[in-house]
This record gives sequence, C-alpha cells and structure tokens, in this order.
Amino acid sequence: MTGTEDRGKSPKKAGALRGRAGRMRGGRGSGRAGTGSVRLWGRHAVEAALLNPDRVHRKLWATREGVASLESELPEGFTVEYAQGLDLARLVARDAPHQGLVLECAPLDDLGLDDLPDPEAAHPIVVLDQVTDPHNLGAILRSAAAFGAAAVVTQDRHAPPESGVVAKSASGALEIVPWVRVINLSRALEDLAGAGYWRIGLAGEAEPLFGDALAAGPVALVLGAEGEGLRHNVAQHCDVLARLPIAEAMESLNVSNAAAVALYAIATR
Amino acid sequence: MTGTEDRGKSPKKAGALRGRAGRMRGGRGSGRAGTGSVRLWGRHAVEAALLNPDRVHRKLWATREGVASLESELPEGFTVEYAQGLDLARLVARDAPHQGLVLECAPLDDLGLDDLPDPEAAHPIVVLDQVTDPHNLGAILRSAAAFGAAAVVTQDRHAPPESGVVAKSASGALEIVPWVRVINLSRALEDLAGAGYWRIGLAGEAEPLFGDALAAGPVALVLGAEGEGLRHNVAQHCDVLARLPIAEAMESLNVSNAAAVALYAIATR
Repeated sequence: MTGTEDRGKSPKKAGALRGRAGRMRGGRGSGRAGTGSVRLWGRHAVEAALLNPDRVHRKLWATREGVASLESELPEGFTVEYAQGLDLARLVARDAPHQGLVLECAPLDDLGLDDLPDPEAAHPIVVLDQVTDPHNLGAILRSAAAFGAAAVVTQDRHAPPESGVVAKSASGALEIVPWVRVINLSRALEDLAGAGYWRIGLAGEAEPLFGDALAAGPVALVLGAEGEGLRHNVAQHCDVLARLPIAEAMESLNVSNAAAVALYAIATR
Repeated sequence: MTGTEDRGKSPKKAGALRGRAGRMRGGRGSGRAGTGSVRLWGRHAVEAALLNPDRVHRKLWATREGVASLESELPEGFTVEYAQGLDLARLVARDAPHQGLVLECAPLDDLGLDDLPDPEAAHPIVVLDQVTDPHNLGAILRSAAAFGAAAVVTQDRHAPPESGVVAKSASGALEIVPWVRVINLSRALEDLAGAGYWRIGLAGEAEPLFGDALAAGPVALVLGAEGEGLRHNVAQHCDVLARLPIAEAMESLNVSNAAAVALYAIATR
C-alpha cells in the first residue's frame, strides 16, 4: 500500500454502507445544527471554506492584508466587509489568531455513514470516543486529511460542535474530511464491521503492538479520550485492541499525536 | 531496533558531546531563568515534578481531591496549603485545568548539549526551530519522552520559557526529557553532527520520504515552525531534508503531530 494517492482506483464494493441505511441512526437529523451560523477564522480555515462548494457563505470580514494573503481569488461579486484587526478580534473567540479573516457561514450538512464512499484499504476511518477538546479534534481532522482518511466519526453528545476553534486547528481539513456524527458509537462500529472495516482500538494496556495488529484491508481506528481511554462498550466493539510502542515512563501520547502516528502506520504498512 | 527500551545497553562513545564543551555556547548561563519561580498545575505535571529529585519545590496549593488523586505519597513533612478549586484558579493561567493541584517551584537548571549522554541510535534528539506555541512544545516533550528521545533542543530566543502551560501539555515529560536551550541553533547542529548524529530536517517541499532518509545510527530530528518551516540557515545545517507522506490537499501536519510521527518512524525503523 502506498498511502494516500489511490483514492478511487480500487474496486468498489457497491453500497456496503449505503445499503444499510435503514440501520443508520447517526446520519442526517442526528442533531448536528443544520441551521444557525458558524464563524471561521484564520487563513487556511477561511480559504478552504471559501473553496468548498458545499459550504454556504454568509459574510466575510477581513483586513486588506487578510484578503491579500489568500492564495485564490474571491468568487466574483463576493462582498467583503473591510475592518481593522482589532474589530475582527471582537467577532471571534478570545485571543483567536484570526489572521485578518473572519467568515460567517452555515454549518456543513449532516453526514451519515451511508454517505461515505465504499471502504478502501487506503482510506481508514477514524472513530473518536469522547474526545472533547476542540483543538485535538481539529488536529485529528487535519491528520485525517493528510493521511487520506475516508471520514472522522464522533458521537453527537460527546464531541465538540463545528466551530471556529475546530476549523482553525483543522487548518482547512474541516472542509475536506467528512465528519460523521452518530447517536450511538457501538452501533456505528457494528455497521463499520458489516461494511468490512477491521476495527482497531488504541489502548495503552493492550498487549499487541499497533503495527502487528494491522490487517491488509480497510481499517477503522478507534481512539478514546486521554486519561479515560476507550469506554468498555466501545472497546468491546473493536476487533482488536493494540498499543503504540511508547516508553513506560509515559502513560500515553496526546490523543491527536496518537491518531497521527496510527494513521501514518496505516498509510505505510 | 526495538524502540525505547534499551537505554544504557548500547556501547558508549565517551564524551562525544561532553568533550566539546569549550565550543558549547548554549549550555549553562544561556539565559534560561535559573532564579524565579514557575507554577505548575494538573495532576500529571505536578506529580512528575514532585517525583523529580532535581526539582526544587516551594509550595503546593491543593484541594483534598487533588491530593487524593496523586498516585504517590507526598514526601514526609511536605506542607500542603489546602484551598478550594476556585482559589486555585486564581493562581494559574485563565481557564487552566489545574485539577486541584498547583505547585510553585524553581525552574529546572539550565542544561547544555555537553550534559547529555552519549549518542545512541535508540535515543534521537529533537531540534525545534522557532516552535513558539507552548502547547505544541509541551506535546512534543511528551512524545519525545514516549519515544525515548535523549533531549529536546530549542533556541533560547525563539521558544517559550518553562511554564505551567508547557508542563501541562507535556503531561509530566518536562521532568523526564532534558530540554536544552541554546543561543545558536546552527552551531548546535554542527556540534550534533560532530558527535555522530544524522540530522534530518522535516520539510514539506523535500523530495525524499522521511522513512527512506533514515540512517541506522543516532538521529537528530529537526522541525520548523508551522507555516514558516525551517529557516534557510537551519535547513543548510541538516544532512538531509525529507517529507512525511501526506496528501497534496494538506500543506502540513500540526508540528507536534509531525514530531510524533517522525519519532515513531525512528523508533520502529
């Protein structure tokens, strides 16, 4: 496997997930805000949102320098409200590094597992159990995009909502990687198994090393919150629990670092 | 190589770095605060500091629950000032997750490259060029400890000082991994080469893949700030520049994620 460059080249297993739509409880209508607005800031996050045809843009506040820093042209007729950096600071979270760009837009549409492409070995799915820090979630989206993941799956009630902090940490990846919010993580893991994913849960106390636990086919990588680890019921829905080879002196890695390492190991297996 | 478990078993190349002390400008007296105080918070950071014999402790403020959460006993005769959580919040950075434990202590002693053990393949050195975010620096210290790194090297003027934020993100690793602050990063890289380290700089635009650029011996992993990358002069002091295998859609990984991936690749080569 060469990693992240063969999207679309593998044979399709038609409808492996789509055909199970009747059992999908975590798709559209799962509670992710479909109305309302979200404010994004920072050059990468705003530029990626402007380039995303699925994103409904409402208003861009920007400094002259912010607009000049964009690599692509603004859509024709797009109106910009020019402002000073200090004015932009009042539009976003405290101390947010807006880089002269604040975009108000609609949240992305809800996605369900049945909206994802068919499983491919080159495109793992990342499943997060109660990872609540928006910086970590954003960094995981970023690594997921970098290593060609097909999706990031979170549980609706135990994950941060779409936000400027998530988008900034994701550095554009929020617009690239499908983010699926489900009601029930165990059921989602059952569905992923049915679709042919090999579910590996990261657990520091597990015996097998992650590299040894990898199979050849599509992988669902399951990560728990730092400190807590995977909840019992989620761990029970994994095919194998495995650990990264870290020194005994440290209990764990930061969860986004663990995700990046595991995604790299999958991409280079 | 099996990773992180053979510290001390490899043959020593006596004094490879220590013998060059005359050329070391970044060691003791390099400007890192030797006086003053630093406040640490959070269970892992405080517990590791309490266990560190090289750390001078001044005062521990804590809630009953905070003290109960410690896995090890407090040193005999150690005085604790019990307080409410809200009182502790006033002692630390805004919104800092102190977990009922705030420790005031002296900063760690300055370290120079000449204080490090002799180079070993199992113990890479991480060199950071202008990584200024304390959360990233802390997470890198954590991954460095997890993957058995011999040290993290930063430039005195372009890195965060020792602080509660760094310590919290490092989750105890601040007390475990030697953190060397140097005046001149290029000179430090020259010294590392002289000691036998193969210096690999991570650069998204490089042609070789990181895994292919690895040699068998001791490695110095050189990372630049996100966005900026390695400065020209620092890149020139690397033996090879290499990239991680990430998708074109993403410009880069979060710098702490990139460090974790590279350290994993070194540990499992």
